[in-house]
Amino acid sequence: MRELRVNPERLAARIEELGRIGRNAEGGMDRTTFTPAELQARDWLKERLRELGLAVRVDEAANIWARREGSQGKGKSREEGKGRGDGEESGGGNGAEEELPVIAFGSHVDSVPNGGIYDGALGVLLALEVMQVLAENGVATRHPFELVSFSAEEPNPFGLSTFGSRTVSGKLRREHLDGVRDDKGTLLVDALRSAGGDPDRFEEARRKPEELAAFLEVHIEQGLRLLDRGIPVGVVTAITGIYREEVTVWGEANHAGTTLMANRTDALMAASELMLAFEAVCREHPADETVGTIGRIANFPNAANIIPGKVQFHLELRGKTREEIGEAIDSWTKRAEDIAAKRGVRLERKLLLDQHPAAMDPLVADVCAREAEKLGYPWMPLGSMAGHDAAHMAALTRSCMLFVPSLGGKSHCPEEESRIEDIEKTGNVLLRSLLALDEQLNR
Amino acid sequence: MRELRVNPERLAARIEELGRIGRNAEGGMDRTTFTPAELQARDWLKERLRELGLAVRVDEAANIWARREGSQGKGKSREEGKGRGDGEESGGGNGAEEELPVIAFGSHVDSVPNGGIYDGALGVLLALEVMQVLAENGVATRHPFELVSFSAEEPNPFGLSTFGSRTVSGKLRREHLDGVRDDKGTLLVDALRSAGGDPDRFEEARRKPEELAAFLEVHIEQGLRLLDRGIPVGVVTAITGIYREEVTVWGEANHAGTTLMANRTDALMAASELMLAFEAVCREHPADETVGTIGRIANFPNAANIIPGKVQFHLELRGKTREEIGEAIDSWTKRAEDIAAKRGVRLERKLLLDQHPAAMDPLVADVCAREAEKLGYPWMPLGSMAGHDAAHMAALTRSCMLFVPSLGGKSHCPEEESRIEDIEKTGNVLLRSLLALDEQLNR
Repeated sequence: MRELRVNPERLAARIEELGRIGRNAEGGMDRTTFTPAELQARDWLKERLRELGLAVRVDEAANIWARREGSQGKGKSREEGKGRGDGEESGGGNGAEEELPVIAFGSHVDSVPNGGIYDGALGVLLALEVMQVLAENGVATRHPFELVSFSAEEPNPFGLSTFGSRTVSGKLRREHLDGVRDDKGTLLVDALRSAGGDPDRFEEARRKPEELAAFLEVHIEQGLRLLDRGIPVGVVTAITGIYREEVTVWGEANHAGTTLMANRTDALMAASELMLAFEAVCREHPADETVGTIGRIANFPNAANIIPGKVQFHLELRGKTREEIGEAIDSWTKRAEDIAAKRGVRLERKLLLDQHPAAMDPLVADVCAREAEKLGYPWMPLGSMAGHDAAHMAALTRSCMLFVPSLGGKSHCPEEESRIEDIEKTGNVLLRSLLALDEQLNR
Repeated sequence: MRELRVNPERLAARIEELGRIGRNAEGGMDRTTFTPAELQARDWLKERLRELGLAVRVDEAANIWARREGSQGKGKSREEGKGRGDGEESGGGNGAEEELPVIAFGSHVDSVPNGGIYDGALGVLLALEVMQVLAENGVATRHPFELVSFSAEEPNPFGLSTFGSRTVSGKLRREHLDGVRDDKGTLLVDALRSAGGDPDRFEEARRKPEELAAFLEVHIEQGLRLLDRGIPVGVVTAITGIYREEVTVWGEANHAGTTLMANRTDALMAASELMLAFEAVCREHPADETVGTIGRIANFPNAANIIPGKVQFHLELRGKTREEIGEAIDSWTKRAEDIAAKRGVRLERKLLLDQHPAAMDPLVADVCAREAEKLGYPWMPLGSMAGHDAAHMAALTRSCMLFVPSLGGKSHCPEEESRIEDIEKTGNVLLRSLLALDEQLNR
């Protein structure tokens, strides 16, 4: 088993093959969830999985699962095995032992509009490659292995991202689907049915913690940290928390000509200073992963000859711990109060989102790091600054992610790219880590 | 004649009376040009003028003119008087002398939506008061006196402000009316007809320089300079120039989570710095009248989780001379280039408007200042930071303006207000200055 490796030629060919499904005229990827192109990608995947003899199942949330049985306790139901001792260090197909829970791995095949061919798809194709290597080499694992391709990970016209993993982890329930439509008026429940889901039995897609032993996802980094350091493998320590506020700056609208500079309470000028102070706080924060963005702004009345009386902006902060997010917010709050006092504007702040960071499992991360070292690959720990399915799976089971360097740090665009040599290395770490986890985990 | 004064009680009553026409439920003034309320205000004015025995005429641009004949050359046409000597220091009703050109004065009765009762109306009511005092006292003037109420001075749904004065001064021509409609689809030519104008003979509203001797307009200041200094009368030295650019800041749109602070080219952050630099330039400029505003901004793609890739804003600069406007623009340009270089953004600048400042006539301004002093009223010279009909009349004849203090500096809002004691003083300066001009001007 020590010599098992992924096949880079096959991987490259499949990246290209799956990448043709939904490719638009400009070379971008249009595979938004539940669109015909995305359904075609699902079919392509199911076909590949069936070719490997795996048991393919589409759950009620339209997540695709492909199962390879484990050797331990094979043929026994969990009920039969219940109450028996565990603690064995390794095991074969011993019918007397308890069946072990599932080691799961995968990602998603949907894309943003005009996105790239790597985001999500790469994680699924590497999971497929693992399944193929295991099959070709007749490898028996103690734990059942399940590949998963989650539904609707990306922001989509139904407004529900990480749809599949939130359902599996019990965060998304039937009531959340009620009346949800896309901008064309299509009901989410109808779209879900078209992909093989079942809104009437929706919550049966939820999995119990005891069914799972671990989850591991490979994804492109979507940033520059690995590339800049020439490191092919990233081991994710945490998935970013996302904090969002709507800040309203109340100034005084006035005549742009007759109001002297000294007599103005210009909401846009105050907002400019507030925004730059926010940028400074994020730049000065010691953690690289603490990033802040003001992506959305509205100015009132927004006429060339009227001094702005009101500005609203969305302030977003991401960080790998709640403490770091809190530090940055506190620091900005102090500066913002000073700026508001100096300029005579009033601030109104409304919390929009406070999604906590999800720590990755240290045991799984250690296994990944160790396997990278055994393979002689440089690796580094890093926080994920985008949200991922693994953040929700972490609520259910030991979870971790591996990152592949992104050329130019680009993602969600047609230029998204990763080098096959980096993909190969990360794929080998995935394969070896799954096997190591299989050996090491006793539930 | 030395003892002539305006009547403050009558003025106050008429401000209130005209101020009821178009008053809305919130106490604001809705007398947008060519609306039923504005037509009613025109009728009210014409009635008052006819009561005084004045010859009322509505020109092709629907400007209202009310004429009081001069004594010099009365009954003779200009043709008959042509070629005869001038240079007389004063004159009575000598039929042998050449008829003199018109001394005109007035303002406008239209308002912005939900505006106040003083902007424009005050200048017309003071002109009416002057006519009434002259009539009551049987005053003969050498020059014909004409009150004028200009059409559509304010920004209006047809997109043509200072409509009447631009037509009189020959800047607005028939072709500018073609196809112009308001947002309800009403043709400007139809609205113009409803107010007594004649689009078919539109350019006949234009007056020749030789027909006019001077123009004087009273208006509220719309700022705080007079009020802050406790000065009741402002003598306007120039009407602001207005310079507008559209500035586009090109940055790089990117993922708000995965792009480290150090790797961003955030167009909105660059724009914030550019806008604050513009504010600093205007604040530091030695002339109070140099004011700059960024009233309009658009951010792209304007999504909370995407780093802005492009920002457009309208930069407006006003000043009393072209040199001062130029200085401020040059100074900002240098700082803007530094900011753009430092942040790696590209700037694109498009000129939208470059309306030159209009200097007021020094002779008329001197007369006004001298009359204020004779009356024992504090006065000050100041630039007008809003546009006015007088700016266009200045292209045609010696023109000047008098300003009345605005409480709170407010205008274009229901809270717009001026004190009757300031109005009375400025009214007396208007009356006395017109009579002094009548004595002093020999054409």
